[in-house]
Amino acid sequence: MSAEVTIHKGLDNVIIDESRLSLVDGAEGRLIYSGYKIEDLAENALYEEVVFLLWNNRLPTADELESLRAEIAAGAAVPAPVLAMMQQFPQDADPMAVLRTATSALAFYDPDAEDSSPEANRRKAARMTGQVTSLSAAWPRIRKGLAPVAPRADYNLAQNFMYMLNDEEPEVNAVNAINAFMVLLTEHGMNASTFVARATTSTKSDMHSAIVSAIGTLKGSLHGGANAAAMRMFLEIGEVENVEPWFVNNIKNGGGKIMGIGHRVYKVYDPRAAVLHDRAEKLARASGNGKWFDIAENLANLALADDYFIDRKLYPNVDYYSAIVLYTLGLDVDMFTPLFAMSRMAGWTAHVMEQTASNRLMRPDVIYTGEVDLPWVPLAERN
Amino acid sequence: MSAEVTIHKGLDNVIIDESRLSLVDGAEGRLIYSGYKIEDLAENALYEEVVFLLWNNRLPTADELESLRAEIAAGAAVPAPVLAMMQQFPQDADPMAVLRTATSALAFYDPDAEDSSPEANRRKAARMTGQVTSLSAAWPRIRKGLAPVAPRADYNLAQNFMYMLNDEEPEVNAVNAINAFMVLLTEHGMNASTFVARATTSTKSDMHSAIVSAIGTLKGSLHGGANAAAMRMFLEIGEVENVEPWFVNNIKNGGGKIMGIGHRVYKVYDPRAAVLHDRAEKLARASGNGKWFDIAENLANLALADDYFIDRKLYPNVDYYSAIVLYTLGLDVDMFTPLFAMSRMAGWTAHVMEQTASNRLMRPDVIYTGEVDLPWVPLAERN
Repeated sequence: MSAEVTIHKGLDNVIIDESRLSLVDGAEGRLIYSGYKIEDLAENALYEEVVFLLWNNRLPTADELESLRAEIAAGAAVPAPVLAMMQQFPQDADPMAVLRTATSALAFYDPDAEDSSPEANRRKAARMTGQVTSLSAAWPRIRKGLAPVAPRADYNLAQNFMYMLNDEEPEVNAVNAINAFMVLLTEHGMNASTFVARATTSTKSDMHSAIVSAIGTLKGSLHGGANAAAMRMFLEIGEVENVEPWFVNNIKNGGGKIMGIGHRVYKVYDPRAAVLHDRAEKLARASGNGKWFDIAENLANLALADDYFIDRKLYPNVDYYSAIVLYTLGLDVDMFTPLFAMSRMAGWTAHVMEQTASNRLMRPDVIYTGEVDLPWVPLAERN
Repeated sequence: MSAEVTIHKGLDNVIIDESRLSLVDGAEGRLIYSGYKIEDLAENALYEEVVFLLWNNRLPTADELESLRAEIAAGAAVPAPVLAMMQQFPQDADPMAVLRTATSALAFYDPDAEDSSPEANRRKAARMTGQVTSLSAAWPRIRKGLAPVAPRADYNLAQNFMYMLNDEEPEVNAVNAINAFMVLLTEHGMNASTFVARATTSTKSDMHSAIVSAIGTLKGSLHGGANAAAMRMFLEIGEVENVEPWFVNNIKNGGGKIMGIGHRVYKVYDPRAAVLHDRAEKLARASGNGKWFDIAENLANLALADDYFIDRKLYPNVDYYSAIVLYTLGLDVDMFTPLFAMSRMAGWTAHVMEQTASNRLMRPDVIYTGEVDLPWVPLAERN
């Protein structure tokens, strides 16, 4: 074996393709979707506007936006057999395992399931983007014994999510916060779940398979599971006055990690976290309960100021303030990661379509470290 | 952007890790599992023996083999709610979509589902290896309205598969053929489905998620779907005397591809195909119907001899003669890929455990080709 062999464990800095979908600029703390700054999109765009942008590489006209909104709303209903199946799932099932299983079952009832033509993929992308949102709103109801709520044809996806979750007309502040969260979370370059969606697609498998793979990958605590982990940490801290002793005991002296702080790509402040920080603060103040935001804020400042971290530049990432936004909106903590998944649908499906348009089977290599050509020993002669 | 940027589309020759599981030597046409030649294993080893080898890096003693056989058989029963769920699936559902969904649902009833410790992973690997075989035997029955058959505690996995498929004591020739097929298919380096299983694991997601991702990836026609595609091609040809005109019309003049011929890694004869060739011939002759084997053999020889292919060295791969073996055993053609999946369980789970033992989150990169910092245009001003 040549001494020149390089092992790219984690695939850091290995460039696997070109993509027009997003620029994740970790050095400058910039995130751009198909030309537009994330700050402009979070401030101004409906989630469906970003869906259109990612799928078409330009912003929609008002008519095009209304057409896509209506298409997504019309296709968002979960087929009755899938809802019936979910009603048989154990109530304590992990919500990401539920989403993975139910999304997989959607394929049975999708007329385009086995067709990966560009036209069929585009139709499936719209249907699945709506359906995964509906599944994410349905499970917290179903596991409490409540009937799932069907989507309304006149609502946008953020409205429909809050409506299907609570079975009441959604409040505008909550809808705006969910819409901004969905916009900020929908696309982020070659993260692990997106990469796996593309790798699944690379065998010419179908879009449902790719999205199911992505959901299973997002589930991990190093990826989408981090928002729930951050909230559990805030809940463990419990009170603002506990932040400093918790930090000293668990992090400085305990060797633990702060959940939702630090990022593989961003070496400066995560631009999504900056937007969510301000959203979280407004929501928390408006709700009359600023405690969780204050805990998060104090902990982040402590970590930034402390010389324990001084060389590592550990800033809050997107999961950190996401947790405060979702908790303030009343979401169950274990539903945070499904919320991340439903938001990521526009990006995942856009990547599946980009991969399909210019595909090559992904087949990397490993160095074999085992033995070679051992002689066979019959079972009776082994000891 | 520097001119030195290399895009590793398809990740060809990108080494992502070390592995002690298999040596896939494409230049020499060698395949070795943890030290042992595939030819020795296919000739002598029970599938469970190979499972032990991959999980423990050595062959088992007779007692250890019996212990693992019994553990796998005891854990192979599919939980009743999953079977009940499958009975509600549409009868024409794609069998790989069925396997993906049902395997995902197994997590709800697995006491170790959310525990990724080495001990829990080892228990899940044994359970899931049995259960995925049971699911693969159950679906062809369930979709015909037949009751699924529970596994027997005294059978090995190849016996149980044939028993659960047909609800009768399995014939020794069929069991031996299935066992050899499972041994030959269970591990093959960093193929796309195994790679995706490892990438899913890299976020610290769980084993069910990793296997579900692998199943969805195997489903593609460039990967596990190829065995069914090869059989459909043989069925389309239909008779031995049609081979030559079919070849001339569809391949030489039609520009089509022969399914199951050629391989990304093997530049010489696929060693698995060599073993399966002989198995397929024996089975076909013993069955009294050698037609499908003869069609396959004639087509392979024609392709090898023809100057159309002379520079491309296109040899039959593992899927080509797999198709003849499985068809001769009476399997439905659309069940061929689930059979590949159940066989690959030992390898997939071994890779999940290897990745877990020395993990790094997989996060490659892409080159962004879109625009940057486009000014925001309000919806009303677009046209």
